[in-house]
Amino acid sequence: MKPGGDAAAGPAGPLALIAGGGDYPPALARIVTRRGSGIFIAAIEGVADPQAYGDAPLTVYRLGQLGSLIDDLRRAGIADLVMLGALPRPSFGSLRPELATLRYMPYFAKAFRGGDDHLLSGVVRFFEQQGFQVHGPADIAPELAMPAGPLGRHRVTPAQREVIARGFSLIEALSPFDVGQAAILADHRIVAIEAAEGTDAMIARVGDLVQRRRLKLSDGDGILVKAPKAKQDLRVDMPAIGQQTLRNVKAAGLAGIAVRAGQVLVGDRAVLGRLADELGLFVEGIA
Amino acid sequence: MKPGGDAAAGPAGPLALIAGGGDYPPALARIVTRRGSGIFIAAIEGVADPQAYGDAPLTVYRLGQLGSLIDDLRRAGIADLVMLGALPRPSFGSLRPELATLRYMPYFAKAFRGGDDHLLSGVVRFFEQQGFQVHGPADIAPELAMPAGPLGRHRVTPAQREVIARGFSLIEALSPFDVGQAAILADHRIVAIEAAEGTDAMIARVGDLVQRRRLKLSDGDGILVKAPKAKQDLRVDMPAIGQQTLRNVKAAGLAGIAVRAGQVLVGDRAVLGRLADELGLFVEGIA
Repeated sequence: MKPGGDAAAGPAGPLALIAGGGDYPPALARIVTRRGSGIFIAAIEGVADPQAYGDAPLTVYRLGQLGSLIDDLRRAGIADLVMLGALPRPSFGSLRPELATLRYMPYFAKAFRGGDDHLLSGVVRFFEQQGFQVHGPADIAPELAMPAGPLGRHRVTPAQREVIARGFSLIEALSPFDVGQAAILADHRIVAIEAAEGTDAMIARVGDLVQRRRLKLSDGDGILVKAPKAKQDLRVDMPAIGQQTLRNVKAAGLAGIAVRAGQVLVGDRAVLGRLADELGLFVEGIA
Repeated sequence: MKPGGDAAAGPAGPLALIAGGGDYPPALARIVTRRGSGIFIAAIEGVADPQAYGDAPLTVYRLGQLGSLIDDLRRAGIADLVMLGALPRPSFGSLRPELATLRYMPYFAKAFRGGDDHLLSGVVRFFEQQGFQVHGPADIAPELAMPAGPLGRHRVTPAQREVIARGFSLIEALSPFDVGQAAILADHRIVAIEAAEGTDAMIARVGDLVQRRRLKLSDGDGILVKAPKAKQDLRVDMPAIGQQTLRNVKAAGLAGIAVRAGQVLVGDRAVLGRLADELGLFVEGIA
């Protein structure tokens, strides 16, 4: 926490948003702008959609232009930043670093080895060493994260709550291995664990098992659980669910989604709650 | 262990083989017959192939004919049995129990809830309560299990051995959750964990990630690890690899397979070793 800063209100000075793909970065930009705080939007080329930011001033950077970005932030007197949005896992060779970036490369060469946690925590450490304060998106805009309790009108039953607790325990047990931020429980067992394939592919796989009758779901059965790993750095690597997650869960025949309250991004809560009701799913944040 | 019995030689009296699908049950039957020991083959309808047993006497049973099977075993004076081979996970309703089986059904209604471990250990307990001694296939025929060291000429490197140790640790950490007897490690991380989809589907998924360039494998990278869960009952639920596993691993672009020595069925070691050499894979048992 920066002295004088306030978690919910963000930093006192202007904030830099390093924006990847998806709806969350523009949503965060709108929230900060609505507050009247200054924001410097650094849109990453190829993933961030500049159109999504309306009239907000915005600069596009390639990943290889890290050096220019840092120079620009310093010139603008910006000390606080938040990184948000989908980022392709780049190959080290594809970065095409500009001259101003080259001096930082030996640092990243190391970070590129190891799991995602390793890479991302390397990025945070790097910015901190350059004198920046890295904030989490939920610190800047708590309204983007899942609250405790249900979105929409469906609530988990006590029996479902037991299954969910087992799912969270599983995710915790996987934490030391830097893997598994989501799992699906059904038919009194764990039927899928997420690794490199991603949450959507995992959901589709379970839907396929159901369709081929290798997995039988009774009423209210089939739960996606999602939570950060024990040591996951929520400043740069917050798990997220969105409208597509709900649609996929419905298509697979599952009953609902349980996530760790405050630790998973959901974007617009009202939109997601309406969609949950429409699809007949529960979507609940567990404290 | 039965008094007077010897692990490697099997029981003193005749042995009943409750045979599911695949090559292992006929292989075990041949080994026992070659020893000159008596064997009673109970082939499960729909999964066991009666042709695979040559001239050996054999009776076919539906799963719902458990009562008849037990009566037949008692009449034949058989006290020892081994269960081996692929079995579909039946729905409780599809059993169509005959009259002689009905009296056992309340017992199994309970066992059908919970994970695979729960169901299988229920089956073992059931036979034990009926007075039978349940043997593991590797106790009866140790030659069916993976030995320590490589099959074929490729050996794991020290670097690969470290990755493999991490994979075994993962499987151990998942044990309390009754899930995950296999995983794939690549690119300095865990890229897939097996749950309800089975080993082959997990391998195919990683092959797909490689093909879509979401996962990059360098030379010697990509290892399937397979081992029983910590409390897995090796008498009825031994993990297995076979020729198809090797072919799938090759097709996915992986470097090899590491399994717990003595705890994973491999069938014919010589055949598998030749195939490993032909495909350029390592297949190694780790003590």
